[in-house]
Amino acid sequence: MTGNSPVLEVAFIAVKPGAESDFEIAFAEARKLPEAIAGFRGLELRRGVEEPSRYVLLAWWDSVENHTTDFRESPQFGKWRELLGPYFDGLPQVSHASAPL
Amino acid sequence: MTGNSPVLEVAFIAVKPGAESDFEIAFAEARKLPEAIAGFRGLELRRGVEEPSRYVLLAWWDSVENHTTDFRESPQFGKWRELLGPYFDGLPQVSHASAPL
Repeated sequence: MTGNSPVLEVAFIAVKPGAESDFEIAFAEARKLPEAIAGFRGLELRRGVEEPSRYVLLAWWDSVENHTTDFRESPQFGKWRELLGPYFDGLPQVSHASAPL
Repeated sequence: MTGNSPVLEVAFIAVKPGAESDFEIAFAEARKLPEAIAGFRGLELRRGVEEPSRYVLLAWWDSVENHTTDFRESPQFGKWRELLGPYFDGLPQVSHASAPL
């Protein structure tokens, strides 16, 4: 269950206005990439209500390093950024949180 | 399953440094309050890794209005704020997102 996962990544991804559909199409391909990474438990992407050009990505990991090292230093991350980066309106705002209280 | 819930609330709650334990104790009581509200599907609270005085609250609702109207205008919200408000370091940053893509 991702809901009990030790580490939650919360990323707000601002997408260039008008590029939302292209971003979503690219994301449908990109979302499979982290599956190859140790400690990856799952992810979901949702579109913002108040700011429809801003998406929230939740991803669940066994440890922060599974995300910040194992994923970000992998070839999969290069492909992820290649697919999604062109639609980013600035860098995503990313933070992590510990297991649920 | 909260993971497929139509609406996700993401709230970042900055807590006064040093008040984290008291906040967590108060939260253990407060977390039951939304259960009485229509359209409430569940919540979880996690402590920030990069900023340990900042917590992230995820809550799942059937609609945005279940949160912004049904909960915020309820007596339960008065109690929620009474329990938790003293520990807030500024107002929580709250946004909503649609069903997962």
